[in-house]
Amino acid sequence: MEYISSRKNAYIMRLRALANDAELRRKEGEYLCDGLKLLDEALQKGAKVCSVLWKGEAKPVPGLDGAKQYVATEELFDYASPMKNSPGPVFTIAMPERAEADFERAILLENVQDPGNVGTVIRTAAAMGIKTVILCGACADVYSPKTARATMGAIFSERIIRLSTAEAAALAREKGLKLYGAALSARAKDIRELPLERVIVAIGSEGRGLSEELLSLCDGELIIPMAPGSESLNAAIAASIVLWEMARR
Amino acid sequence: MEYISSRKNAYIMRLRALANDAELRRKEGEYLCDGLKLLDEALQKGAKVCSVLWKGEAKPVPGLDGAKQYVATEELFDYASPMKNSPGPVFTIAMPERAEADFERAILLENVQDPGNVGTVIRTAAAMGIKTVILCGACADVYSPKTARATMGAIFSERIIRLSTAEAAALAREKGLKLYGAALSARAKDIRELPLERVIVAIGSEGRGLSEELLSLCDGELIIPMAPGSESLNAAIAASIVLWEMARR
Repeated sequence: MEYISSRKNAYIMRLRALANDAELRRKEGEYLCDGLKLLDEALQKGAKVCSVLWKGEAKPVPGLDGAKQYVATEELFDYASPMKNSPGPVFTIAMPERAEADFERAILLENVQDPGNVGTVIRTAAAMGIKTVILCGACADVYSPKTARATMGAIFSERIIRLSTAEAAALAREKGLKLYGAALSARAKDIRELPLERVIVAIGSEGRGLSEELLSLCDGELIIPMAPGSESLNAAIAASIVLWEMARR
Repeated sequence: MEYISSRKNAYIMRLRALANDAELRRKEGEYLCDGLKLLDEALQKGAKVCSVLWKGEAKPVPGLDGAKQYVATEELFDYASPMKNSPGPVFTIAMPERAEADFERAILLENVQDPGNVGTVIRTAAAMGIKTVILCGACADVYSPKTARATMGAIFSERIIRLSTAEAAALAREKGLKLYGAALSARAKDIRELPLERVIVAIGSEGRGLSEELLSLCDGELIIPMAPGSESLNAAIAASIVLWEMARR
């Protein structure tokens, strides 16, 4: 256990950098999470906890033997933490190694920029037993503290793959999976009438939907029917209804 | 059109008060929304627009004849607006008169405190053709600017009713509707196996679920089945899956 009292401490500076810099996270293969509940989830799911910063005093948590532990004063902790008024701790997790992508069903998000939405979709995918989430385009970084928090721990067990749209379409073909795009077009088929075995379903941003490029690579389009006068659903809601439909049959 | 240049202007002060004070909103029967898209929705759906504050200059919008219109400098607008960096306008809407609650299906939220979640559920309910949303306990105020924004205009067409849990249960009985509570209990029935005609389905907060009081008043409990290891869904996601199940049959 190391006690830290200075803002210039190298670990404090590194935590702040990891919280704010997606490139650095990727380069170092490490990301930052917040809170005891998420720490418990990480340990339960076998994620590799690299380091822990406690607020005021350390708490005894079994399973942290491999992690370097630090304690900071409350004020210094607040300076280091990306969350306001967090009771702590903050901790860092090693990004999982890129495993062989062995899956038969996945949800794909394109240009979903809100970290809460991306995190919520990962959480719902885990709850629905869909183990793979593909992120294309300008999605919120899955390893940002906000996204990680919104997953409620599902980030430690889901397989999350960043691909270009072309790579995603190629992966679908290689695996013999259908790639469907959620769209509000006249040619889109009612989701209730489509088989959802061996599929990747793509959801676009709320404002713009899926890109022309991705739609052109899809094997078909699907729609969640809505009442007249309704134009769209929140992106996380649309993804969750698709995930539920994949799971419910 | 009135041009305003002072922070002490009575209208500016009133807008700020309406944005922050749920009691005042209720007393005055007026609430505040933000943005041209929401203004269009309000006019399309026949909501009564009472006043509009434009940022920098007014835009010509048909249908605003009955509304008092103001223009403020950009700086003063930013002071008055509850949203950061809003392009404007800000406008006020008369709360709908409490209409006769004539419905056969509704979603009920209890103690859902996040305005984004409450607004998103109202939006999804509208998209699924469920016209009534009942709010019990310490839900986020539906007339706060954040909630209104998250509804994406559904606030102007949905019937939103605030009731105590006892009143909600009495209303269900009076109408001959079943009141189901979403719960993670062993006695909860799989949502796919329940008839969802003539029902009110209650969703609790993420952290705590439904209150004991509300559960004791329910005719039954339902569960959205989840994969092992998943403990819960985001409250708005759970409500949206229930709404989709109500609509999909």
